[in-house]
Amino acid sequence: MADRVLRHILQSQQFDRPFLEIIFRWAGNFKRNMSGTLSWGGSSEERLWDSKQLQGTHMIELFYEASTRTRTSFGMAGLRLGMNLIWTENAKEFSSAIKGETLEDTIRVLCEYGPDAIVLRHYETGSAERAAAVSSVPIINAGDGIGQHPTQALLDLYTIWEKFGTADGLRVVMVGDLLNGRTVRSLAYLLAKYRSIRISFVSPSDLRIGSDITGWLDKKGIVFNEYDTLGWETLGYADVVYCTRIQKERGSDASEETLAKFRIGKQQMEMMKESAILMHPLPRNDEILPEVDSDPRAVYFKQAGNGMYVRMALLLWVLHRI
Amino acid sequence: MADRVLRHILQSQQFDRPFLEIIFRWAGNFKRNMSGTLSWGGSSEERLWDSKQLQGTHMIELFYEASTRTRTSFGMAGLRLGMNLIWTENAKEFSSAIKGETLEDTIRVLCEYGPDAIVLRHYETGSAERAAAVSSVPIINAGDGIGQHPTQALLDLYTIWEKFGTADGLRVVMVGDLLNGRTVRSLAYLLAKYRSIRISFVSPSDLRIGSDITGWLDKKGIVFNEYDTLGWETLGYADVVYCTRIQKERGSDASEETLAKFRIGKQQMEMMKESAILMHPLPRNDEILPEVDSDPRAVYFKQAGNGMYVRMALLLWVLHRI
Amino acid sequence: MADRVLRHILQSQQFDRPFLEIIFRWAGNFKRNMSGTLSWGGSSEERLWDSKQLQGTHMIELFYEASTRTRTSFGMAGLRLGMNLIWTENAKEFSSAIKGETLEDTIRVLCEYGPDAIVLRHYETGSAERAAAVSSVPIINAGDGIGQHPTQALLDLYTIWEKFGTADGLRVVMVGDLLNGRTVRSLAYLLAKYRSIRISFVSPSDLRIGSDITGWLDKKGIVFNEYDTLGWETLGYADVVYCTRIQKERGSDASEETLAKFRIGKQQMEMMKESAILMHPLPRNDEILPEVDSDPRAVYFKQAGNGMYVRMALLLWVLHRI
Repeated sequence: MADRVLRHILQSQQFDRPFLEIIFRWAGNFKRNMSGTLSWGGSSEERLWDSKQLQGTHMIELFYEASTRTRTSFGMAGLRLGMNLIWTENAKEFSSAIKGETLEDTIRVLCEYGPDAIVLRHYETGSAERAAAVSSVPIINAGDGIGQHPTQALLDLYTIWEKFGTADGLRVVMVGDLLNGRTVRSLAYLLAKYRSIRISFVSPSDLRIGSDITGWLDKKGIVFNEYDTLGWETLGYADVVYCTRIQKERGSDASEETLAKFRIGKQQMEMMKESAILMHPLPRNDEILPEVDSDPRAVYFKQAGNGMYVRMALLLWVLHRI
Repeated sequence: MADRVLRHILQSQQFDRPFLEIIFRWAGNFKRNMSGTLSWGGSSEERLWDSKQLQGTHMIELFYEASTRTRTSFGMAGLRLGMNLIWTENAKEFSSAIKGETLEDTIRVLCEYGPDAIVLRHYETGSAERAAAVSSVPIINAGDGIGQHPTQALLDLYTIWEKFGTADGLRVVMVGDLLNGRTVRSLAYLLAKYRSIRISFVSPSDLRIGSDITGWLDKKGIVFNEYDTLGWETLGYADVVYCTRIQKERGSDASEETLAKFRIGKQQMEMMKESAILMHPLPRNDEILPEVDSDPRAVYFKQAGNGMYVRMALLLWVLHRI
Repeated sequence: MADRVLRHILQSQQFDRPFLEIIFRWAGNFKRNMSGTLSWGGSSEERLWDSKQLQGTHMIELFYEASTRTRTSFGMAGLRLGMNLIWTENAKEFSSAIKGETLEDTIRVLCEYGPDAIVLRHYETGSAERAAAVSSVPIINAGDGIGQHPTQALLDLYTIWEKFGTADGLRVVMVGDLLNGRTVRSLAYLLAKYRSIRISFVSPSDLRIGSDITGWLDKKGIVFNEYDTLGWETLGYADVVYCTRIQKERGSDASEETLAKFRIGKQQMEMMKESAILMHPLPRNDEILPEVDSDPRAVYFKQAGNGMYVRMALLLWVLHRI
C-alpha cells in the first residue's frame, strides 16, 4: 500500500472537471439507488444500495468546531459504506488541545491508530494543509476557519449539476456575507472552472467578496459584478440564487435594517425565473423566510441531503476505490 | 414504503392498553432471552438474543440536553438490534443551534440523510411535536423540557407490570418535585389507563402536581389525594412508591429541612409493605439513602435497566417490525 | 458466566511479569499482523488481522475528563476486535453528574445495560476502585486524577520491551513534573518488577517524585537518584529517557527559565546513546522540541500507537479470551 499516493481533500482548487464528473456520477448513482428505500422502515433486502464497499475501514471525525450537520453527513456516508466511526464533537474544548498540543502532534498520534481517513474541522485557516503535511492517512477538510470547505462546495455544485446538467453558461447570484462566508469562497473557486458563467455578488458594503476571489475570477476570465442591493437586476436573470448567513459569531454586526435588504421572501421569489433554484448552505437565520420553504425552487434541504451522497463518492475516491 | 404511516413516540397519552401489552411482552422476551448472557464475557454463540432485527438501519440521537443515561439506553437498545448509531451529546451548545437554526430546520436536514429514527431530547416543552410536524422519519421523544418523557413512563410502567402483572387496583405514591418532574407527569397519564388505581401525591407545597394532571385524572375518574408529609398514611398502603428528585437545576429552592421530610431511608422502608416496590427515575441525590439500596424492594437500578428492553421493543414497533 | 471472576484493570501494581509477557506478546502479534495493512486503502482481504474476536460485545467509554487520545485508542482497539462502542466525551459536564449523581450510581445503571466492559476516565484519585466496588462488569481505569493510568503504563513498558526485549538492567531517566504526572507514577510501579533497573528522577525541586513512589522503590530494592538538572550525568547513561509535561492545568507554575532547563532538543539528544530511546506520554508542550522528531530515537508517536495494540490485548484478557 505504501506506494499509493495519499488522496487528501483540502481545497476546491484541487478538483478538475473530469474529477467532478466522476464524483457527481457516483453521487447520483447512490442517490438513485437509495430513493424509495431512504424513508424509514425499508426491509433489509431493500437496502442493497448499502453496498458496504468500505467494510472494515475506519473514519475518525476530528471536529474542533461545532458542526452537527457536516459531522452527521460524513458519518452517515461512512456508515452506509460500512465504515466504523469514531468522532470528537468539540476537540477544541475537550482534547489535548487544552493542554497545548499542536494540531500536527494530534494528527501524528491519530495516524498511529491506523484510520483510513481523518475528517478534520478546524477553526484556523490553513489547518487542513498543516494536517496533511504530517499525516500518513488521507485528510478530508470539513471546513477550516474562513478558509475552505471543499466538500460543501462539491455538494453545492452537485446540486446545480443535478438540476442543470452542467454549470456552463449559468448566471449565479451570491447573496449575504461574502467576506466571511467559507462556502461562497469555495464555490466561487469551483464555478470558475466552467465556461460562460456569470456571477453577481450581492452583499452589505462591509461584507463584500474578498480580493483573493475576485482576483482569481479575473485571472480565469469569469465575468462578475458586485451589488449592494437585492432586486430585479440580479434575481430576475439568475439561474441559481445562493444565499448565505450573516455570521454573527464571526463578528459581523450588520443592523436589522441592513439584513432586511438581503432577505428572500415570497416577494423576491416572484422576481426569480421558474427554472431557477434557491440554495443556502444552512443553517439559516432569517435570510430566507419559511414562507418560501414549500416553493419547489427552494432546494436548500435537498442540497444538504446531497452532501451525504457526494461524501460517499468522495470516500470511495479517497480510499482508492474509484 | 411511502404509504406507511409514520410511527412517532411523542407522549404517554398516545398509548392504549393493547399497545402497552405488546411492548411489555416484547420487552419481557428480550429480557428473559438475555438473562444469563448479559454478564460480561459471554461467547458469541450465547448472544443469539442479539437478534439484529434492525441490521442496516440507522438511529440519530439528537440531544440538546445532558442525559447520558437515556442516550446510552437508547444506544444500547439500537446496537443490540443491529442499528448503526450517530449521536450528539449536547446539540444546544455544539450544533447549528448556536448559529440560530430552528429545531425544525435541523430535523428537516437530518431527515435528508435517511435515518430510520431520530431520538430527540430537547429543553423546550412541545419540541417533539414540533419536530414530528416536519419530519419524514419517526421522532422518538426522549424528554422535552418539563413536558413529556414517554419512554421513561413506559419503562416505569413496565417495571410495575413486571412485578404485579398489571397496574389495575394498585396504590401508587408519588413523592418529590411533582410540579417540574417530567417523569411523574408522563407516568400519571399512563396510570390513568388502569382500573381502580389510587394515587397519592406527596410533595412540598410549592412543588405540587400541576392542574393539567389532576384535571386529567378527574376526567378519567382516578382517585387521588395530595399530601405534604410522607408517613404511614401513604407509605403503609402503597404497592408502588415512586420518588423523584427535587430538581435544583429547574429552579426549585427547597430547604434542606424541607427535603429531609421527603427522604426515604430505612425508617420509611419499614412502613412499606413486603410486597411493595420503591422506584426512582434516577439520577437521585439523597431522596433515597444508600442504606436502602440492598433492600429487595428497592428496584430503581433494575428499573433503569428495563429502559433498554422497553426501548428495544419500541424501536421494533417504530420501524414497523411489530 | 456468573461464576467467572471479574477482571478489572485498576492499577499498575496488579500486573505481574507473567501477565505482562502475555499481554506484550499479544500486542506484538497484533502489531505485526497489521503492519503493511495499517496504511489507508488496504483491501478487505488484507484486513484479516481484524480478527473480530469480540464481535457482538459492547464497550462503554465513560470519560469525565478530556482525553481524545486515550478514548480514541480504546475505541479503535475495540472496533478492530469487533466491539460496539458508546462513549461520552465529558460526563462531568454532560451527564447526570451535574444533577449530583454519584459515580457509583452511574456505574450501577450502566451495568444494567449489559456492556462487556466500561472504560472509565475520572478526575478523582481512587474513582476506578470505587467504580469496581459496585460494578458487575469489568472496569478499565483509563486514568483517575493524579492517581493511576495503568494502560498508559503498560504501553510505556511495552514500548521499552519492544526495543530491548526486557526492562531488566536498564537505566531509565524520568524528566519533568514527577509530582503530578500520573504516567510516571504508574510506570515506576511497573519498572520496580524488573531486576537491576536504575532510575534517575529529574525535576524542578517543587515537582519531585512523591514519597509513595520512592518508598515503594526502596521497599523493592530499586536503585534511584534524584536530580534537579538535566545533563550528561543522567542523559549520557540512559537507555530510556521518559519526559513528561509540566501540567499547567494541575497547578504547576514553573517559570519559563525553569522549564527550559528540562527541555530536550538536539543538544540533549547528542548526549544520549545511539541505542537509547526518547519517550513521552503526550501531549507535549515544548518539553521536547520538534527539531528532534525525526531522530530515530524519538519514539513518542510510535509509543502512542502502541497503546492501541496493548489495549487490544487487554480487552481480550478482560473478556476472558486469553
